[in-house]
Amino acid sequence: MLVGNNHLRSIWSEGSKIKIIDQTLLPFRVKILQLNDLQDFTDAIISMKVRGAPLIGITALFGVANEMRIDASQRSLNNAVSKLWKTRPTAYNLFWALNEIKTYLSSIPKGERYEAALTFANLKAAEDIERNKRIGKYCGEQILKKSSKKRINIMTHCNAGWLATVDYGTALAPIFYLHEKKINVHVYVSETRPRNQGAFLTAWELANMKIAHTVIADNASGLILQKGLVDFVIVGSDRVIHTGEVFNKIGTYMKALACKEAKIPFYVCAPTSTIDWKDQTRGRDIIIEDRSPSEVTDIMTLNVKNNRVGSFRIVNESSDAINPAFDMTPAKFVTQIFTEKGGSTPNNLWKQKND
Amino acid sequence: MLVGNNHLRSIWSEGSKIKIIDQTLLPFRVKILQLNDLQDFTDAIISMKVRGAPLIGITALFGVANEMRIDASQRSLNNAVSKLWKTRPTAYNLFWALNEIKTYLSSIPKGERYEAALTFANLKAAEDIERNKRIGKYCGEQILKKSSKKRINIMTHCNAGWLATVDYGTALAPIFYLHEKKINVHVYVSETRPRNQGAFLTAWELANMKIAHTVIADNASGLILQKGLVDFVIVGSDRVIHTGEVFNKIGTYMKALACKEAKIPFYVCAPTSTIDWKDQTRGRDIIIEDRSPSEVTDIMTLNVKNNRVGSFRIVNESSDAINPAFDMTPAKFVTQIFTEKGGSTPNNLWKQKND
Repeated sequence: MLVGNNHLRSIWSEGSKIKIIDQTLLPFRVKILQLNDLQDFTDAIISMKVRGAPLIGITALFGVANEMRIDASQRSLNNAVSKLWKTRPTAYNLFWALNEIKTYLSSIPKGERYEAALTFANLKAAEDIERNKRIGKYCGEQILKKSSKKRINIMTHCNAGWLATVDYGTALAPIFYLHEKKINVHVYVSETRPRNQGAFLTAWELANMKIAHTVIADNASGLILQKGLVDFVIVGSDRVIHTGEVFNKIGTYMKALACKEAKIPFYVCAPTSTIDWKDQTRGRDIIIEDRSPSEVTDIMTLNVKNNRVGSFRIVNESSDAINPAFDMTPAKFVTQIFTEKGGSTPNNLWKQKND
Repeated sequence: MLVGNNHLRSIWSEGSKIKIIDQTLLPFRVKILQLNDLQDFTDAIISMKVRGAPLIGITALFGVANEMRIDASQRSLNNAVSKLWKTRPTAYNLFWALNEIKTYLSSIPKGERYEAALTFANLKAAEDIERNKRIGKYCGEQILKKSSKKRINIMTHCNAGWLATVDYGTALAPIFYLHEKKINVHVYVSETRPRNQGAFLTAWELANMKIAHTVIADNASGLILQKGLVDFVIVGSDRVIHTGEVFNKIGTYMKALACKEAKIPFYVCAPTSTIDWKDQTRGRDIIIEDRSPSEVTDIMTLNVKNNRVGSFRIVNESSDAINPAFDMTPAKFVTQIFTEKGGSTPNNLWKQKND
């Protein structure tokens, strides 16, 4: 999508070079990084230079491909998959992508693995974009079916925009779709503490696309939904259980509660690769990633004096914090889930399974 | 309560001098300010050097008293009341306090007004402390009745501690009560964006009292309540409608929703002076203060390099924000309200009215 007047993707290959935008510096600086070895790729995922479930999956694929360039042995393949697997515990696409590429490459002769892997990663990246456009269309059409308002108000949480995917996004895809159709859309962007992906990334994406938006403290979501200022809430997901439970950025669950109370549709946009078909516990056994307490106790911001991004303490010095990164929204609070296959109520998700 | 080894109050008089702790610098610095004229008092309330519904009321009383020292005319009294009235729109205690002192002083000869006003303010301050201790006892006893756990987990929001009152606090009063009884209490403190009163003030109070606590992002409240890690949620209030609706710091409403869903008691601690006996709209017509968007777009923190408190941009530069400061929790989500008269279900609050 647009950054100023240029079209950028969140990850791309230039010959054998794999490049990303360092998202930890946004919105303060647009810095392009080249990832050279496995360490670069695992670090990029762990430190959230790339983040968002679909993009994490694609980055892992490029990471495996890049490793095949250096050493295409089965041992190297196993090692790359194993190291990348451990980077983030909740994102389902990551495991899905790694399983796919490992199975695929294992059947390919060593000498052809690098080229095959790079082609595979690029293909999956292209498919990601195509999928997201379909998600945007399905959800966008549903919105137009439900609302004939002159100005449609949508609330989102965290960043499930193009930065969270290869391009176009998931939760922001219907917003881009409506914007392309010249529909007047306004977006409430919750800042998404502790890492501010809403205030940093979603607001930046929307500003670059010239889509009207207002940033709010996460705490303000309840009031704004209660007052009926929002027509639809749309979020992405890091893992959707086949029974309809939705794992997404911490804070999502309370928005779903407030939607239910205010009778506002709560939509989830995510590709089918996000769906966990195996879990038999309705999400109860899924490990929720505990990230570093320092993300709560310190905030990252730009020091205008020296133009450097640094972090600053915002919690009483002698106090501790905990930092669960995701929460689980039970299926009963989810109105519809949109994948590249169309919209579905959470209890009908099983119909979208490929046989 | 304790700051290090010293006992401090949030406002006090030394002869004719009125002193406060500048709460905008906490937890980074403990700075005591003397308020000298009406401008100092209105500014202290508007800029939140003092904040918290009960303390705002008491500060207004000292402000009127101080003004009577300078000019005890009716005109000066009316002017002081009128200027102080406009400082914050949601805190009901403010209007209650100003009405009380205006009625009282109007019947007193000019020459005696200053001394009468100062005595009145000091009396109300002492009453505030006594009231809070009673609130803490009533709510604390209810908690001990409901839970026999070895370690009681309580979640609170914003700061309704001693800093929000003259001393002892409202929502933190039962926690101080239990701590005094040597009950093992652990408190989840939500940071309370955009002004971080939880992370700054509540965490600081609890740390100074050596009470176990953990700071969380506001977004994490839903997950923590859903997982049953909390036995009670206790919040203060800026205005309780006599029909049971509770206005409190933005973000409170979503905690109440999550409590209902998880069947966790949601308690409100506030003196009867917080109760709005007049509203006939179940809170719908109450104006919710919109504060400056800069509180959302910029965060205040300590720059460790130069030891100065400054603010830093944390939202995409070209994006706007809105900043509603309070939300309304409908009565059906409130388990009990504790005042200095005891505990009450929200629908029985009218029984606490003085005739």
